[in-house]
Amino acid sequence: MGTTSVTDTGAEPLVIGVDFGTLSGRAVVVRVRDGAELGSAVFPYPHGVVDRALPLTGQPLPPEWALQVPSDYVDVLRVAVPEALKAAGADPADVIGIGTDFTACTMVPTTEDGTPLCELPEFAEEPHAYVKLWRHHAAQPQADRINAVARERGEKWLSRYGGLISSEWEFAKALQVLEEAPEVYHSMRHWVEAADWIIWRLTGSYVRNACTAGYKGMLQDGEYPSADFLRELNPAFDTFVTDKLEHPLGQLGSRAGGLSAQAAAWTGLPEGIAVAVGNVDAHVTAPAAQAVEPGQMVAIMGTSTCHVMNGAELHEVPGMCGAVDGGIVAGLWGYEAGQSGVGDIFGWFVNRGVPPEYHERARELDLSVHEYLTALATEQEIGEHGLIALDWHSGNRSVLVDHELSGVIVGQTLATCAEDTYRALLEATAFGTRTIIETFIRAGVPVTELVVAGGLLKNPLLMQIYADVTGLPLSVIGSEQGPALGSAIHAAVAAGSYRDIGVAAKAMGSVKRGVYQPIPRNVEAYDQLYAEYTVLHDYFGRGANDLMHRLAARRRQLAVQKGQD
Amino acid sequence: MGTTSVTDTGAEPLVIGVDFGTLSGRAVVVRVRDGAELGSAVFPYPHGVVDRALPLTGQPLPPEWALQVPSDYVDVLRVAVPEALKAAGADPADVIGIGTDFTACTMVPTTEDGTPLCELPEFAEEPHAYVKLWRHHAAQPQADRINAVARERGEKWLSRYGGLISSEWEFAKALQVLEEAPEVYHSMRHWVEAADWIIWRLTGSYVRNACTAGYKGMLQDGEYPSADFLRELNPAFDTFVTDKLEHPLGQLGSRAGGLSAQAAAWTGLPEGIAVAVGNVDAHVTAPAAQAVEPGQMVAIMGTSTCHVMNGAELHEVPGMCGAVDGGIVAGLWGYEAGQSGVGDIFGWFVNRGVPPEYHERARELDLSVHEYLTALATEQEIGEHGLIALDWHSGNRSVLVDHELSGVIVGQTLATCAEDTYRALLEATAFGTRTIIETFIRAGVPVTELVVAGGLLKNPLLMQIYADVTGLPLSVIGSEQGPALGSAIHAAVAAGSYRDIGVAAKAMGSVKRGVYQPIPRNVEAYDQLYAEYTVLHDYFGRGANDLMHRLAARRRQLAVQKGQD
Repeated sequence: MGTTSVTDTGAEPLVIGVDFGTLSGRAVVVRVRDGAELGSAVFPYPHGVVDRALPLTGQPLPPEWALQVPSDYVDVLRVAVPEALKAAGADPADVIGIGTDFTACTMVPTTEDGTPLCELPEFAEEPHAYVKLWRHHAAQPQADRINAVARERGEKWLSRYGGLISSEWEFAKALQVLEEAPEVYHSMRHWVEAADWIIWRLTGSYVRNACTAGYKGMLQDGEYPSADFLRELNPAFDTFVTDKLEHPLGQLGSRAGGLSAQAAAWTGLPEGIAVAVGNVDAHVTAPAAQAVEPGQMVAIMGTSTCHVMNGAELHEVPGMCGAVDGGIVAGLWGYEAGQSGVGDIFGWFVNRGVPPEYHERARELDLSVHEYLTALATEQEIGEHGLIALDWHSGNRSVLVDHELSGVIVGQTLATCAEDTYRALLEATAFGTRTIIETFIRAGVPVTELVVAGGLLKNPLLMQIYADVTGLPLSVIGSEQGPALGSAIHAAVAAGSYRDIGVAAKAMGSVKRGVYQPIPRNVEAYDQLYAEYTVLHDYFGRGANDLMHRLAARRRQLAVQKGQD
Repeated sequence: MGTTSVTDTGAEPLVIGVDFGTLSGRAVVVRVRDGAELGSAVFPYPHGVVDRALPLTGQPLPPEWALQVPSDYVDVLRVAVPEALKAAGADPADVIGIGTDFTACTMVPTTEDGTPLCELPEFAEEPHAYVKLWRHHAAQPQADRINAVARERGEKWLSRYGGLISSEWEFAKALQVLEEAPEVYHSMRHWVEAADWIIWRLTGSYVRNACTAGYKGMLQDGEYPSADFLRELNPAFDTFVTDKLEHPLGQLGSRAGGLSAQAAAWTGLPEGIAVAVGNVDAHVTAPAAQAVEPGQMVAIMGTSTCHVMNGAELHEVPGMCGAVDGGIVAGLWGYEAGQSGVGDIFGWFVNRGVPPEYHERARELDLSVHEYLTALATEQEIGEHGLIALDWHSGNRSVLVDHELSGVIVGQTLATCAEDTYRALLEATAFGTRTIIETFIRAGVPVTELVVAGGLLKNPLLMQIYADVTGLPLSVIGSEQGPALGSAIHAAVAAGSYRDIGVAAKAMGSVKRGVYQPIPRNVEAYDQLYAEYTVLHDYFGRGANDLMHRLAARRRQLAVQKGQD
């Protein structure tokens, strides 16, 4: 649990933003007038990610499972919010609203009144009664069937998701519950995004947010997948939408309700203040970076990268994660794309591919190995390492939507050293981003600025490479707690302090514009290397040589055989 | 200086084999009757490889230069031969012959009587007057011109060398002397292979061996490249063959002459005993491994791999290093092929790509990192690592003859670890060997057995992979000093103890036959992975995607720019 604060709160109106991440929740106290972050506090979830055994009984979980315990989220409200207020030296009476964002798609099975099933004594030992975290990947067989049936039936919503529905999303996870624990499925009245469940706890009433309903719940043009479609997946699944999922929507930035007496008691905030409609961490970051106009692509760069951007019109962009009406701000089409491996590829290389003397030298220089390799790589001319890599070590989300793709490196010689490969991997992820940008542009969705948030913006070489590879000016978010600030912005709009998210973002968001400018001679050099990347990208990614799928199939088959031995 | 010995020499006829390597010379005393190695001694060259500065003056040498000092070779005769005799407890009077092998193409510029020019006072400070070691690579511009002019003129000998003449060979190195030090060139009466120069020292007369004359001197069907061709390279080069190179040939295994009084004094051996015609380390290994019949491919596997094999007929095999009449044994066509990187690729990976914990764990287990990775990789099923690599980190000698190719690895994921990549690299070199074998077979030259010599035969996983990938039984040489034993076999034939090399090899050579047998289910699995390798091999190696050449050209250009800065 950590706290930070600045002085001089004044007696001006304040809002609270709460960011529910994978391992902890962070609350921040923000001044409505200018977005100043006055104090914050982090509370790690007591149960963390439950991926090995149930906490109560120690019952082991199968591979690919990832659960959470919903009371941990309430504990964030009870602990982090008061601590943040204290750190800010703020008077709770000055707080006029609270907003939240959550990981997604993270799902809670509940009773009629929103009680998580895992809190009922009869289900305390039933894994399927717990929260399924976004990274629960055990519903892949269900996702495979969803995709196969949707393709076969020519479901028109499929193209809104780049042609592939993820095992992480609402339908696949629910179908897994039905098929593996029918008694849980039948006892469940609501299948609720955690993003909305926390709002339910704050207000006492259930409002479903338009963002996750569209991106994760496959709601398009006002309709969910049909009962006919669901019946083909499983006859008992046909009423899933009507019985468990469908619920009135709230638009992002709207007031979901007033803070309940119980939630006021948890947080120390005034009862009845505005609670904003639930939202998602990546999407809420856009206003925090003042990037909600069409053409401003926000890249939240961490272990993976999520790209969110508004567009004035709907275009079907091949290979994106989703296009949702009002998915980022009401009134615009919200586009989402992603790269499934970025920082985690760099981390993999540092952990798995760097020889001892680099670790020693970095220690001597009091640098991390990342920093040391970056310093060495910064000395190089573009192309000096003689390498081209494909950044698919964790598969490819956009634009190929293919998680069986894998990494490639071409050009190694007996002189190749760690900084060479490290730089080639940095560049490969930048080429991946350019591929996404060019796909948007070709589909009629303009991209004019790249706004970076997330931990990787600390690497200046990486940022300059992204500017040089994309040829776009790079802006960087001003806040170090972008999602929490974004949630606070939503709280301010929900409280009526600003007309809409766009106006609030201008006043409260924070961005350093054009920090990295493309350098023409670098752009020219990278144009040539990007052309090489694209040839390899298409060769390995679009069917000319299906080697990676065959290698993956062989690995899977061997794993099955080993399991049988 | 190390010596080894076994007991019980008896009073039987003995021969001496001397192997002149890159850094040292090794003498071995061998019993003629059965090839028993009775004692040996190693003498490191006092001047080693001269690649930074001339020994006398400290004058610095340009990059890519590699010289030697010829008196070092004589010192091997003076020191290692008597020490080996002593170690064997042998009576020098029982020795009936001496044979030698040398690195090639290693060239000595001499006067009329064979005195190296660097031993003349006027040339002691002239780098071009010294021995040019095989790995002197500074004649690449001359080699490029030789290849361009030969292609343009359609010289028919070019196809005997896979379409490309090396900068290491006799003509390129001589042309460099002419163009950079014309006074040395004009003072030089003979341009002599070190393999023959040492025989000249032993016998007092110059005999040019058929092996290097063919492989390195471009002698084909009794003719060298024509004066017209030479004139096009440089008008002053037109008489190179007639003035400096041409000399009567000796067949391998023949008697070059009798041991001179001077050499008898150096070595302590009886004056007048048989001295065999000079030979090359790789080629002389074939009889030491009892592998001189057509179809027996000898792979000398070390940092790189050299393949030598006899064939009954001449076939033009694309991408080999050379086909020479009597190039390995008189009366058969000697084929030579090679892989330019094998052990050095594994060494590069261990030094440049393995994280600290592997080094620590290997130390704890008292294993080398190679041994530790091999032990981990041995646990894997074929294909379990999900990787395919191309073994071109040091370019490709056979069958693509392209030193600008580079390494590739496909299939890395965030789970890929060091033993995965290590095993994939072992396999890649085996696929490279299979490519060479299949090319021979397709060209009408049968390959029925793979006989392995060299340091890498100590790795049993690597050996089994080679058997499984090639589908051939693997035999391994019995001697740990194969080249020296091979030279001793040549000495025995030169002394008249055996009718020919084939008969002598059967009596004196040493091989464990079929030590590694292909395992049918592994062969089947590797057939599929080899098909994947071949697709990548042809894609990157035969022009479909010339990426590697473009990457190499960019690196070269940047290096030139840096040099100009």
